[in-house]
Amino acid sequence: MFQIKVYSDDKTALIQVPDNNSLLYHLRSNGLQVDSPCNGNGTCGKCRVKILSHSRPLKQPGPRESELLGGDALSEGYRLACGIPVSCDMEVSLDARNDSAKIVTEGISKDIDSDPPVSKVCLKLEESRLSHQRDDLSRLIDSIKNPDCHTTQHYGICAQKSGELYGEAMPDDSDLSLLRSLPSALRQEGSCVTLVTGCSKLLSVEAGDTTAELYGAAVDIGTTTLACYLLDLNTGKRLSVSSLLNPQKIYGADVISRIKHAMDSPEGLEQLQAQVVKGVNAGISALCAQAGISTAGIYAVTLAGNTTMLHLLTGVDPRNIAAAPFIPAFTRSINVKAAELGISINPSGLALILPSVSAYIGADTVAAVLSTGMYRQESIALLIDIGTNGEMVLGSKDFLYACSSAAGPAFEGANIRNGMGSITGAISSVSLTQGFRCTTIGNSRPMGICGTGVVDILAQLLEAGIVDETGRLDTLWKSENQALAALSRRIVQVDGINAFRLYEQEETLTGRDIALTQKDIRELQNAKAAIAAGINILVKEAGISFDKIETVYLAGGFGSYINIDSALKIGLIPGALKGRIITVGNAAGQGAAESLLNRNSLNAAYELSRKITYVELSARSDFNQLFVDCMLFEE
Amino acid sequence: MFQIKVYSDDKTALIQVPDNNSLLYHLRSNGLQVDSPCNGNGTCGKCRVKILSHSRPLKQPGPRESELLGGDALSEGYRLACGIPVSCDMEVSLDARNDSAKIVTEGISKDIDSDPPVSKVCLKLEESRLSHQRDDLSRLIDSIKNPDCHTTQHYGICAQKSGELYGEAMPDDSDLSLLRSLPSALRQEGSCVTLVTGCSKLLSVEAGDTTAELYGAAVDIGTTTLACYLLDLNTGKRLSVSSLLNPQKIYGADVISRIKHAMDSPEGLEQLQAQVVKGVNAGISALCAQAGISTAGIYAVTLAGNTTMLHLLTGVDPRNIAAAPFIPAFTRSINVKAAELGISINPSGLALILPSVSAYIGADTVAAVLSTGMYRQESIALLIDIGTNGEMVLGSKDFLYACSSAAGPAFEGANIRNGMGSITGAISSVSLTQGFRCTTIGNSRPMGICGTGVVDILAQLLEAGIVDETGRLDTLWKSENQALAALSRRIVQVDGINAFRLYEQEETLTGRDIALTQKDIRELQNAKAAIAAGINILVKEAGISFDKIETVYLAGGFGSYINIDSALKIGLIPGALKGRIITVGNAAGQGAAESLLNRNSLNAAYELSRKITYVELSARSDFNQLFVDCMLFEE
Repeated sequence: MFQIKVYSDDKTALIQVPDNNSLLYHLRSNGLQVDSPCNGNGTCGKCRVKILSHSRPLKQPGPRESELLGGDALSEGYRLACGIPVSCDMEVSLDARNDSAKIVTEGISKDIDSDPPVSKVCLKLEESRLSHQRDDLSRLIDSIKNPDCHTTQHYGICAQKSGELYGEAMPDDSDLSLLRSLPSALRQEGSCVTLVTGCSKLLSVEAGDTTAELYGAAVDIGTTTLACYLLDLNTGKRLSVSSLLNPQKIYGADVISRIKHAMDSPEGLEQLQAQVVKGVNAGISALCAQAGISTAGIYAVTLAGNTTMLHLLTGVDPRNIAAAPFIPAFTRSINVKAAELGISINPSGLALILPSVSAYIGADTVAAVLSTGMYRQESIALLIDIGTNGEMVLGSKDFLYACSSAAGPAFEGANIRNGMGSITGAISSVSLTQGFRCTTIGNSRPMGICGTGVVDILAQLLEAGIVDETGRLDTLWKSENQALAALSRRIVQVDGINAFRLYEQEETLTGRDIALTQKDIRELQNAKAAIAAGINILVKEAGISFDKIETVYLAGGFGSYINIDSALKIGLIPGALKGRIITVGNAAGQGAAESLLNRNSLNAAYELSRKITYVELSARSDFNQLFVDCMLFEE
Repeated sequence: MFQIKVYSDDKTALIQVPDNNSLLYHLRSNGLQVDSPCNGNGTCGKCRVKILSHSRPLKQPGPRESELLGGDALSEGYRLACGIPVSCDMEVSLDARNDSAKIVTEGISKDIDSDPPVSKVCLKLEESRLSHQRDDLSRLIDSIKNPDCHTTQHYGICAQKSGELYGEAMPDDSDLSLLRSLPSALRQEGSCVTLVTGCSKLLSVEAGDTTAELYGAAVDIGTTTLACYLLDLNTGKRLSVSSLLNPQKIYGADVISRIKHAMDSPEGLEQLQAQVVKGVNAGISALCAQAGISTAGIYAVTLAGNTTMLHLLTGVDPRNIAAAPFIPAFTRSINVKAAELGISINPSGLALILPSVSAYIGADTVAAVLSTGMYRQESIALLIDIGTNGEMVLGSKDFLYACSSAAGPAFEGANIRNGMGSITGAISSVSLTQGFRCTTIGNSRPMGICGTGVVDILAQLLEAGIVDETGRLDTLWKSENQALAALSRRIVQVDGINAFRLYEQEETLTGRDIALTQKDIRELQNAKAAIAAGINILVKEAGISFDKIETVYLAGGFGSYINIDSALKIGLIPGALKGRIITVGNAAGQGAAESLLNRNSLNAAYELSRKITYVELSARSDFNQLFVDCMLFEE
């Protein structure tokens, strides 16, 4: 595990990376977008970054990298991010020469005022005397009610906003920890105390004026990775970013195997909860270490994630999510003391778990919808997040429909003969019709093909006519076009199945040939049909036509790195949507950050989660026919 | 430690006793009043009980006991409770022959409807289907809102009462344990669930119909003893009673030494909390064992106690109670999950801590006022509870004044040469002027004198003129009355101080003589003056005269066993109040039970605690003069 510290214009991020993928890969995986039109092929020279320090020697630049950068830049420490495998800790600057470097989704929702769900106010307490012996709690309550005791206006305004004057700020008769803090807090710094309020409650009373310190963290808990953001809630500034693999992975790669683990033994659920909490705490620690603040300075954490992850986080049995009729225990938002979940922030700090919609439309999708702003637009948009399941949301301010389509893990490289995850050695982009060229992650010798790679290959095979519209690989294919003709020798049989071979065994790192088989094509055909049929159902349910969709937001890792033309070519995204597609990176993480920064956004998340109409595809009689129709490859 | 199981008309009680005091003593100490006009002297024969079983042989009846009972009763197993030292486990019946046997305070507040602060309702859930995939929580909420789902009317009525339809019953978005219970609770017994509500919250959801099981416990946490009561909240019946010593006693006998222990080391407070919780749990266990129910069947515990005990119970630093200006951290009522305090009842059950007034007017006094009903009477009453502090409350439905007077521990036998607690061997009542006779607890040879004994002696010495109105012991006293003349030889010097000797060293169990010294008399004089001056201040503050006080309630152990004539004679209670004094036993425990049984009573406790005006004696300029005036012995 290596650490990369990334400096950009107004913030720094600490990334923990598990392997030696390219620096470009890791920066992008962590939501730090670096300009890279050639998609990491080492040909455009746009992904340059300045290496400030590195704990071990770096790979020397190759001739093409040297040429693209020029001698001056090289001597100043510039390198192409795509050309450096990360094999040590390093510090990197994304400086002004890379002015497109930014948190992926920052452009989408920019005008967020800082009005966070937790706030602080300083109070000067009334006196307590022998002749007027008020207990600490009553003295506090009397002081809250006395406008003369307020040193800032903010508090009164909040209280009035909530409809009941001061109601928001009153101590709860069931908060023992607040009570336990009073004797000391009211006597430490004269009679000056700071009230921390949140979720219509007085969370804690701190000695003295601590209003300057008010931080929050936003965390998106993915099945595979956790993305964490630290915000200064006084200024609204993002201070740091961190990401890490979900430590639950030791219990299985996908939600179903995790649910199975939770069901298999009485300790299973506890183990899964402990692991995800460990991950959240590691992410928050990294954020704080980096920004130089204490975790005790964080008073709220917003948490997004799929429905299963949120059950595991809260220690709620997820078993009924796994089998029909797919019933989660909860979808509403949950607001608890973070300490109750084992999350290490300020002891009185809140964990605000964003609302979900259904078993397979989680708070991550709700947060993504929030961050795109589509729920308040006149025009209709489509949000697509493709993983093992594809989650799709179609709508505008007037309506929102969502479905989740079981695409299977083909796009994550699973169930594909030479499939693999997006790690070093994976072929991530392929050109066949414009001359054979494969790009592997980390510029390593190839080991297999990741999701974006298989989509590229299939698109090119369709383009060349080697695969026909039914998905059949034409073993007799020939071309009179000189550039293409050479491809015919790649049409072979592997393991007794027709296939298109990319590399022979001598060329690969594994000593095994790499090919896309007829069977792989069928897997992809099923997967893309599931997504495309889901999109068609939503369009049908909404009673609109494709030309009414003005914007398509492609979210998540796969969505961010996929070649959009290839996705259109294989029909993963209906061709009718061409030209309207925007990639939005980790939109869920951005939504979680937005709801941390502004309680109107937090409320909007609650409201839009209720507004989304979930369409259960397995309950639709027309889904099967649409699925079969979408199997065909036709633009 | 021995166990006595006591059967009476409609309930049974399990008493744990630490020593071999008389059975009468233990029955009365635990609030089970047995008729005993001679106050345990073995002369009236009224305290007869039936011994059902005993684990070891009992002391044989003496000639006077045999005579008083008669042969028939003896052969049926009857004994005089004053004649049996408890030296083994036993089962005792207080049957119809003793029709005055009852829980001390039961007579005072009789018309309590059962409308407890926790309640249950059975609900038939709506269905959940693939085509209408509601999560468990939403399905529950929808069912609560649907009147067709309610199998009882009670719930709807409660909800409407609270002003907001169904508001009371809605799940809280911060209750993780409720959430964790849903997947199983909603599927175990078809679609029938029982909702448990309390304090305007849905506490838990149980599988099936469990409405028949709804118990509550009331606990009065005294510095010395804990008294516990088990109630069936469906019927309002009291099922069992238990009492035990406060296990905190290992850290000191009085509140000040306990507070000191809490301040002395960082673990001090935790240790004190752990001990009192241990005591509460032991008391509740005994209640349940006895009534044959599980502790999980208890859904609420009401807790009374002095302000320091309640700080220690909640783990709140009590240090500011000990020094001027005597500021507790809280006096308001606290309502938490019992589990948060470590109290072992149903995991979702509530601990309802009754409100206090000030550092030295605790929830025990508030509960006592509640149980007397004086706060809703037209006529004016005075409540007196004498211990180390004397707590006094004067008032009616129109006003309530309270004060706490530092009487010192003389009435508990401390700071008295031969003083001791009310245990075996203590001289508890004394006759001098009607012939010399001392009664010791357990009919043992005397070891010392307890509080009621010293009051008796002093009263008789005043009666005889051996002590004059200034408190001086007259060493030259002589009497021409033959019956009294013999007393003069008891006027001696012990340890160089004038004294009145009761027993010479050969007659006592300790081999040391027993006497009341001039110094002891001064201690008592201070103590009674403190109480009497406090009463005078209250009367003055209220602007009334003594003849307006219609009833005096004498509460607590000392108050229940004291000879009222003696108390009047020494001026502990102003003579003007003679003839209006009622002893009410453990009024605090009764008040705790009442507030458990009826939420109007619980609310009344909250209201009356705010209504009581606390009078701080040390802040009164007139207190010292009144105190000096009250030093004189004059009726």
